[in-house]
Amino acid sequence: MTVAYDGTPFHGFAENEGVVTVGGALRRSLERVLGHSVTLGIAGRTDTGVHAWGQVVTFDADPARLDLEVLQRALNSLCRPSIAVRDLAIVEPDFHARFSATSRVYRYRVYNESVPNPFVRATSWHVPQPLDLAAVRNATIPLVGTHDFASFCKRTRTVRPATTPVSFVRSVRRAEWSRAGNGMLIFEIEARSFGRQMVRSIVGTLVDVGLGRRRASEVPAIIAARDRNVAGSVAPPHGLVLWLVRF
Amino acid sequence: MTVAYDGTPFHGFAENEGVVTVGGALRRSLERVLGHSVTLGIAGRTDTGVHAWGQVVTFDADPARLDLEVLQRALNSLCRPSIAVRDLAIVEPDFHARFSATSRVYRYRVYNESVPNPFVRATSWHVPQPLDLAAVRNATIPLVGTHDFASFCKRTRTVRPATTPVSFVRSVRRAEWSRAGNGMLIFEIEARSFGRQMVRSIVGTLVDVGLGRRRASEVPAIIAARDRNVAGSVAPPHGLVLWLVRF
Repeated sequence: MTVAYDGTPFHGFAENEGVVTVGGALRRSLERVLGHSVTLGIAGRTDTGVHAWGQVVTFDADPARLDLEVLQRALNSLCRPSIAVRDLAIVEPDFHARFSATSRVYRYRVYNESVPNPFVRATSWHVPQPLDLAAVRNATIPLVGTHDFASFCKRTRTVRPATTPVSFVRSVRRAEWSRAGNGMLIFEIEARSFGRQMVRSIVGTLVDVGLGRRRASEVPAIIAARDRNVAGSVAPPHGLVLWLVRF
Repeated sequence: MTVAYDGTPFHGFAENEGVVTVGGALRRSLERVLGHSVTLGIAGRTDTGVHAWGQVVTFDADPARLDLEVLQRALNSLCRPSIAVRDLAIVEPDFHARFSATSRVYRYRVYNESVPNPFVRATSWHVPQPLDLAAVRNATIPLVGTHDFASFCKRTRTVRPATTPVSFVRSVRRAEWSRAGNGMLIFEIEARSFGRQMVRSIVGTLVDVGLGRRRASEVPAIIAARDRNVAGSVAPPHGLVLWLVRF
């Protein structure tokens, strides 16, 4: 399934006891329509408040018993209005939403006008002070390529065997800023995978540069430090969208 | 004041006992900042759920005691997140938001894709069946000009002296449809003034034509009937925006 959702009312994708999640809503709707229990595979875990346009979700079902159009309509009727199943397709059994993905594209929207705009408040970060976009773009360049992004990643508290050290090495293929008009800036970044809160930490640091709080020339040293305390703060979740997943 | 608001959480602009209105929220914020009571003048009363980008609102205050920038920031801090004061200016005492306006521009957004889109659901009408835009445009042409729009206007129950008959004669200067990309259709209509629910009734009828439920050639007869029961149903409020007021 290719799934879009407005993350505002959800505590992220992953199911969690006692809170409303995208995964929980999708799974329950699927089970109601299919009549059996399912386990969801997902391309990108999104945090609380983060949106998706092209999230990819898999589940097991008997293809012979599926009418994809009927299933899509039923799911969209059950999951509305904050979740929409944009597309449904039958894939090979060895396809995995997470492991078969070759890259993820995220978009982050920054609304850079002095006066707030009620119509974009749920899907962009309002930065009222004027940003120096040329400086932001200069600061973005050193991030592209293969680096240890520990300075931009949240350490998860998952217990792992001592033999499996956590790696923050990632390959950013593309990272660019564009103006969408009416004061909206769009940051698009693509990598095979991202660390936890990595895109939002990068945006927080780049906006600091745009506001003159840091210089673009500091970015290589921030990366080299491999220390979360050296980079800027985490940009708010509501500006972030999991835009596209490539396979 | 030029005011934008997301109409979703409000029972329209006009103040009403026991419900949350845009006018009530704005007036209370103004009174809190100014320290005295005010009465608001408005360019266009918007119904429950209708949005505005360029609503114009007036109030009386002593210009010598006003710092417009400070006032704007204070109002935006008090009225956030669904209302934003985009601009503030001092006008001549004989300026009236309603009576000085020479025209109002409304926009209506129709999202014409089979699958719903969570990101536009609050600001557009989702019509999943494909619309025949050429037929819709043909049906729009006869609406431009001076006509009695009684077929498209809600009769208000206001008690008026028998000597003041209610007139539904209006002059539509411009009415046009455009594609905004990604399945969004935008209808823009301009007139000096509009009758109650007139834009939404027009959109309801035009969408009926686009779906093949009525023919474009019927529109002149619908206008000529001057009977509300002859036109189509009223399009939902959340697709409508008071876009711009000219003076």
